[in-house]
Amino acid sequence: MTFAMKVTLSLSKELEDTSKLAGWFEEANSDLLTRGGGEDEGASVVLDGVSGQSMDMTITSGRRVRPHHALQRLRKFLAGNLGMEYKIGIRGADVLTYSATFPLEKAVKTGFSVPFLSSPIEARDAGEVTVEFKVTGDEGDLDIVTLEALNQNIPDRVIKRILDKVEEQHYEGKGEFWELVWKSEEKEVVYSGDPTDDMVKQGWVVQGPTKGKWFLRPQATAVMRAMERIALEEVLIPLGFQEVISSHIVGFDVWKKTGHLEGMPGEIYYVSEPATRDPAAWEEFRDWLKITKEVPDHLLKDLIQIPRAGISYAQCPNIYWSFSGRTLADTTLPVKIFERAANSNRYESGGRHGLERVDEFHRIEPVYIGTAEQLGKLKDDFVVRYKHVFNDILELEWRMAWVTPFYMAQAGQVGVEDNEEKVKGTMDFEAYMPYRGDRDSEWLEFQNLSVLGDKYIQAFNIKAQKETIWSGCSGIGLERWMTSFLSQKGLDPDDWPEGFKKYLPRLPPGIDFV
Amino acid sequence: MTFAMKVTLSLSKELEDTSKLAGWFEEANSDLLTRGGGEDEGASVVLDGVSGQSMDMTITSGRRVRPHHALQRLRKFLAGNLGMEYKIGIRGADVLTYSATFPLEKAVKTGFSVPFLSSPIEARDAGEVTVEFKVTGDEGDLDIVTLEALNQNIPDRVIKRILDKVEEQHYEGKGEFWELVWKSEEKEVVYSGDPTDDMVKQGWVVQGPTKGKWFLRPQATAVMRAMERIALEEVLIPLGFQEVISSHIVGFDVWKKTGHLEGMPGEIYYVSEPATRDPAAWEEFRDWLKITKEVPDHLLKDLIQIPRAGISYAQCPNIYWSFSGRTLADTTLPVKIFERAANSNRYESGGRHGLERVDEFHRIEPVYIGTAEQLGKLKDDFVVRYKHVFNDILELEWRMAWVTPFYMAQAGQVGVEDNEEKVKGTMDFEAYMPYRGDRDSEWLEFQNLSVLGDKYIQAFNIKAQKETIWSGCSGIGLERWMTSFLSQKGLDPDDWPEGFKKYLPRLPPGIDFV
Repeated sequence: MTFAMKVTLSLSKELEDTSKLAGWFEEANSDLLTRGGGEDEGASVVLDGVSGQSMDMTITSGRRVRPHHALQRLRKFLAGNLGMEYKIGIRGADVLTYSATFPLEKAVKTGFSVPFLSSPIEARDAGEVTVEFKVTGDEGDLDIVTLEALNQNIPDRVIKRILDKVEEQHYEGKGEFWELVWKSEEKEVVYSGDPTDDMVKQGWVVQGPTKGKWFLRPQATAVMRAMERIALEEVLIPLGFQEVISSHIVGFDVWKKTGHLEGMPGEIYYVSEPATRDPAAWEEFRDWLKITKEVPDHLLKDLIQIPRAGISYAQCPNIYWSFSGRTLADTTLPVKIFERAANSNRYESGGRHGLERVDEFHRIEPVYIGTAEQLGKLKDDFVVRYKHVFNDILELEWRMAWVTPFYMAQAGQVGVEDNEEKVKGTMDFEAYMPYRGDRDSEWLEFQNLSVLGDKYIQAFNIKAQKETIWSGCSGIGLERWMTSFLSQKGLDPDDWPEGFKKYLPRLPPGIDFV
Repeated sequence: MTFAMKVTLSLSKELEDTSKLAGWFEEANSDLLTRGGGEDEGASVVLDGVSGQSMDMTITSGRRVRPHHALQRLRKFLAGNLGMEYKIGIRGADVLTYSATFPLEKAVKTGFSVPFLSSPIEARDAGEVTVEFKVTGDEGDLDIVTLEALNQNIPDRVIKRILDKVEEQHYEGKGEFWELVWKSEEKEVVYSGDPTDDMVKQGWVVQGPTKGKWFLRPQATAVMRAMERIALEEVLIPLGFQEVISSHIVGFDVWKKTGHLEGMPGEIYYVSEPATRDPAAWEEFRDWLKITKEVPDHLLKDLIQIPRAGISYAQCPNIYWSFSGRTLADTTLPVKIFERAANSNRYESGGRHGLERVDEFHRIEPVYIGTAEQLGKLKDDFVVRYKHVFNDILELEWRMAWVTPFYMAQAGQVGVEDNEEKVKGTMDFEAYMPYRGDRDSEWLEFQNLSVLGDKYIQAFNIKAQKETIWSGCSGIGLERWMTSFLSQKGLDPDDWPEGFKKYLPRLPPGIDFV
């Protein structure tokens, strides 16, 4: 990877005698600009010309001594010499162009734009590419590569973003990796209704009040709470998990660390605090609301802050945050905790369906931190407990599949052919949904189980005394458990398995309407 | 209350013969404009002059036939006559001024502005007041009283707002109504620490991750869950309550009905949905975030919608919403339900303190709907159960106080001198907080119990078969129960009452750090 910067130094007066410049530039190139650059990664400068009070030059470099660092050194060096020799000072440095050249291993299938570049990346073959950064722009432009931006390594991240986008173009359409690990026997289909439709008809649930949300009346709530008790009493408590309570509001700083904010910003429910709590500031808003019976958006937009947080998408980010920078005692490993208080929201838009795919849901999230060995064993223990629940209590037709992302599998981080090696990665638990169609495709992911390596451990700087630690989590979606169960068993409690009836001997009476 | 409107009709050509006008106006005043106005509430018109193609007039009225309605009638009437007699049409009507005159029973202590008025209300004595509405304005002005605004009864609501604001000025500083109903015996102070400080020191809780939020580690969570079980098993289940699950997101439409949005807009955590879930629309946002490691607010503001909802402040609004427009069977009364899944947020700003006054909390909210008699009895039953919990299980020093708002008490809606009559109103439950100071003032409201009459029943159009129904609710704040308890008993489980130990025999081990 190489960089090139054209720059003009402006001098305090005209430089008439240019005879010494060649020597100075040679001196700079021989040592000053290569210091710290190793074999090939230093910088060098070429004098392009001197005209009046301007001195034009081109600085090129490898990765270590970047042009802007070389410029700092060179400016100081030249200022010393010019001052000593001619009493000329350097008034400023004006970057005219800044470019980077690097290899693209794959073709650009479709052109795309990236901030901080002066022009889009065009579709092209693999090979060496040169990109020009935007060094000047209109007033108000925020993506100008200033010297400050160079100091923050903006160009490196632009290049990484280009490479990632090209990579993504080549993964698109490959589908997700999916490999069956285990499946239950087929169960006779005794019910083939859409359980949400039937729950609506029987008054167990009410849709709303806002999009993708549901109000669960006593009957549906009783089923959800039974599912929760089963998860607690048959899985989490026997496995030695302790409960914690976390905020359902996740700050952007936390999501920046986990990658959620860059991964799925279009699925977040954003949260804005009021700009102030002062009643006087809200008085005009209240006047408008009371007089017009409409929310005065023109006032509201200035009375709330730009979001700095969103509603929980999963509980684990705040759980990891709670360990930030702390060192876990080896004796406390593996840490086994779970959270079930924080409500979760995801903006599903067109994908919503009944209580299976909702914008708001209730999940229990166990999180575990320990050595690879501890988590490998814990994962096996989880599978045993989950099998017990889904086979013996809920009597589901279900299956487990290894869904570790393609790139992870490809990168050899997990063995996809040898089950023994499958510690790091994600297992999905899927239930057959008879009302949707046949067994070829109609399965609902109702649960997962992951060991994530040290991704979050590193992101939140969590340490152990002497052990190397990993972490993992398992998402237990209570609405998903409920709809999987009801899709196969129907809404008539007489048809429910005995194991489940132990947890819900009878439905509550509900509320009667006329 | 009277209204006056000056209006100019523009004619299709000059009216040279004005001899018939006096007769027409007399005819309009004698019948057309008073129709439907009863004795004193009709309208009348005075012709102010005719000049070229303009005809100026002043319409005055009482409450029933408003000037804009009178104008419609008059325009049609005059258009008929002018057309027949002179072939002149009416091209338009231009409102020049619009004013209302009404009595102010109390003085305006401090002047204030109100949208839709052409000038602020000045400080003044009680008596008759005339306000001018804004009928013209600059481009972009949203509070102009157009004919459409007149049809939406904007002036009436402006007048109501003026009267309310004057009323509020007279209640300010009166303090809240508070009357002791019952108090426990004084308990010896055995602990006087701030329980939040001590929980932080002992690693039971972590502050954050965002303002006014807390992460509860296993020890604090175990105390919270014990409190929850006590509320369920000692109060709600014995009283026959059924559980429901509600969204923690409350739409503005729901809060407009309950009054929360106009009551406390500065305390709401506002929620914005993404403008779109389309990944292409978010691509530039993701580019910026990955390149700069900062959230690009300049892009975010256009990628999210203006809030149309906020996070639950209390669960009851969505619960009432779930009954909207439905008719309850008399046999189902009293409806007794509770919600404990929805997380609550309130923006406390400078008022935050420890886990006692937080921006996010967990409450159980029982809601009940039934006849006045049923709710009177239920309220008594609640008091018996709550006394049992606070006296026999938590062994608190606590008290109950009648805190029905002053204006309600004054309006004779509740008898404040006769306990028997105190069905409608609110009771606060307060616990003494030794660490804060002496018993004169240092009490924490940890719970309340209300019967609200038909306020929400009407707002959500909830009906019963033949009974007249009321509703009520009780807010059980689990963080408040916990801090009240720990403030008096301390963090050492050995010092905790036996009744509580039944619900929490031992603390979980927690997590060890080095």
